[in-house]
Amino acid sequence: MIYLDNSATTEPYEEVVESYVKVAKSYFGNPSSLHGIGGRAEQLLTQSRAQVAKLLHTKPQEIIFTSGGSEGNNLAIKGAALQYQGRGKHIITSAIEHPSVSEACKQLEQLGFEVTYLPVDKNGLISVDGLIDEIRNDTILVSIIHVNNEIGTIQPIEEIGRVLKRYPKILFHVDHVQGLGKVPTNFEEAHIDMCTISGHKFNGLKGTGILYSRQGVQLSPLIAGGGQELGVRSGTENVAGIVSMTKALRMTLEDETFKIRHISELKRAIIDGLLQIESVSIHTPHQYSAPHIINFSISGLKPEVFVHLLEEEGIIVSTTSACSSKKNLPSKTLQAIGIPIKQANSSIRISLSASNKVEEVPILLKAIQQAITKLESVMR
Amino acid sequence: MIYLDNSATTEPYEEVVESYVKVAKSYFGNPSSLHGIGGRAEQLLTQSRAQVAKLLHTKPQEIIFTSGGSEGNNLAIKGAALQYQGRGKHIITSAIEHPSVSEACKQLEQLGFEVTYLPVDKNGLISVDGLIDEIRNDTILVSIIHVNNEIGTIQPIEEIGRVLKRYPKILFHVDHVQGLGKVPTNFEEAHIDMCTISGHKFNGLKGTGILYSRQGVQLSPLIAGGGQELGVRSGTENVAGIVSMTKALRMTLEDETFKIRHISELKRAIIDGLLQIESVSIHTPHQYSAPHIINFSISGLKPEVFVHLLEEEGIIVSTTSACSSKKNLPSKTLQAIGIPIKQANSSIRISLSASNKVEEVPILLKAIQQAITKLESVMR
Ligand SMILES: Cc1ncc(COP(=O)(O)O)c(C=O)c1O
Ligand SMILES: Cc1ncc(COP(=O)(O)O)c(C=O)c1O
Repeated sequence: MIYLDNSATTEPYEEVVESYVKVAKSYFGNPSSLHGIGGRAEQLLTQSRAQVAKLLHTKPQEIIFTSGGSEGNNLAIKGAALQYQGRGKHIITSAIEHPSVSEACKQLEQLGFEVTYLPVDKNGLISVDGLIDEIRNDTILVSIIHVNNEIGTIQPIEEIGRVLKRYPKILFHVDHVQGLGKVPTNFEEAHIDMCTISGHKFNGLKGTGILYSRQGVQLSPLIAGGGQELGVRSGTENVAGIVSMTKALRMTLEDETFKIRHISELKRAIIDGLLQIESVSIHTPHQYSAPHIINFSISGLKPEVFVHLLEEEGIIVSTTSACSSKKNLPSKTLQAIGIPIKQANSSIRISLSASNKVEEVPILLKAIQQAITKLESVMR
Repeated sequence: MIYLDNSATTEPYEEVVESYVKVAKSYFGNPSSLHGIGGRAEQLLTQSRAQVAKLLHTKPQEIIFTSGGSEGNNLAIKGAALQYQGRGKHIITSAIEHPSVSEACKQLEQLGFEVTYLPVDKNGLISVDGLIDEIRNDTILVSIIHVNNEIGTIQPIEEIGRVLKRYPKILFHVDHVQGLGKVPTNFEEAHIDMCTISGHKFNGLKGTGILYSRQGVQLSPLIAGGGQELGVRSGTENVAGIVSMTKALRMTLEDETFKIRHISELKRAIIDGLLQIESVSIHTPHQYSAPHIINFSISGLKPEVFVHLLEEEGIIVSTTSACSSKKNLPSKTLQAIGIPIKQANSSIRISLSASNKVEEVPILLKAIQQAITKLESVMR
């Protein structure tokens, strides 16, 4: 199998599953318990937090373990908005956010907040000047997706962070779920206040995630209760999930530069191949795009059929982001960059990981060409 | 080791870990994806939901998979309050709830809701008449803990449900985290609208849980986004966690009556033994208490020291609920039932599971007696 749907989810590393099992079996105590069974679990938790902090160049007390990217985004956005609503009720975000950001914003609108959705250009980029123009006295939060999950556009996070530094009352949240391991980012240097990461997108296990929350930032908990995770995220900690995600993070960031170069080369080769095929339009921007995502469409073609034809050849790609793929809604991102609805509705996404191999590229390209020939002959 | 802290967390069944590993490795796809890798994961998810529904005598569309008990309680309480605030902003709960209920209520108070905290009698029981007296025109939610996690009191859930049925605009939520597998409850017959369960409390894995939400009930999502879990709980599903929790649930409910009788007998024998020890006061009520929890104190004794002495003998008990055990706060529940603070501060909790054995009882009692003798001689 050639798995090319890594933006939807990744196969966990074997070592990650092994470490999960070891902890789940041998360190099953509740980290809050006073006895040794609990104490040993707590020690693992503390070590994981320290290791994650080191890997991400943050402080341990800035790391909140969550159940995934959607929780992290909701916690950052609603947690900050509810906490700081005394300062103002205006939020700025982009038109091409993941639903866990845009839906959280919609919920806040129902609670009386105002949200500005920044448009994007044909590359999927917001304008930083446009963002500055929208800042008001009552703006309390800016939330921007780092790497778009459908077309791969990279927003100028560092530049936005530099600008927002001049507005100390505005918090800056970044959805880094698709960026981790693909577009290296130093949260502190980029002046990011909160940053969301999801374990299963970098060969960790589902049900794990991290919210970076800069020291000094206070969040109204989404899950209130016993006060775990520095008081911000209650509930008995998923220690095995946390330890195993820490391992996935370490493995992902090992030789990161090398891996990114490898993925970039695969992407380049796939795009070069796709450009040879007449009926293909590429939606992923040439510049400012992440090394792992390629979005394209083939004119006149039903993408579900295409996905299934490739699957018959053992190649797994997707039509759009996973959470939208069964809803038959036109892609918000593709519409925002000006792709006509009909074309947007026939888009295909290839998303790579460091485990993909150079040898897979010609197999993929050949299969795509064959599928197109087959479908065109059927339609004729 | 004799593990007697099962209300804090349980050791996962081996079969549960095995099923987790199998799914995490072989069914790693995103259930929302259109391709077969996703489809097979989705199938497992659908099967799990159907099986859980059957085991709990509910409909599949009434089962929402969560990350645990704290999330379930927060989702039920805040989700219902925000959804139905148009009807009114008054909530009734008890004085002896788990923090994930009481803290969620406090957050709602900050948003303008009014919360009534029902007192309890010396057995830890609320008065149903007292509850009725507190019902107002603007009451929208009643949330009651089924089995108290510190002393084990069982509230008359069925009776409360019968009463609340007369008030169709009031939703009834039950925190059943300590009740599952210990105090059998039919959600529908008890007229429960929402019911919280946590996987790691019945030999499932941490990071898993269930919220039962009766058909027709609408909840404002805590985690909004891609619309997974029937639109109520977004985020890529933790399929391995869900499948393994389903297995834990099936195993727990197998021979449930037999297991409850077994645990009850152990509890009876432990209490009989404790009653022989002069300096022991038992806080768990004689009647109306769950089969697995025994709370007691030993006059003049530091409970941390006692816990460590027992641990040296390989016996694991706890001072109080896990999430309070390091905070050195007097137990809210023990204070609510009228135990003097000094005595409350020296309380010990033993909590059983079906895996505990009759042979463990005399070993436990002997160790308790020895620890008391040792501590008393030190103090003299
Ligand atoms: C009665 C009760 N409710 C809720 C919870 C919270 O469950 P979890 O730790 O899975 O978040 C617990 C246990 O901590 C509990 O005992
Ligand atoms: C950009 C982005 N943000 C957030 C998420 C949500 O992450 P999770 O599925 O872990 O909730 C995803 C993936 O689904 C994503 O691609």
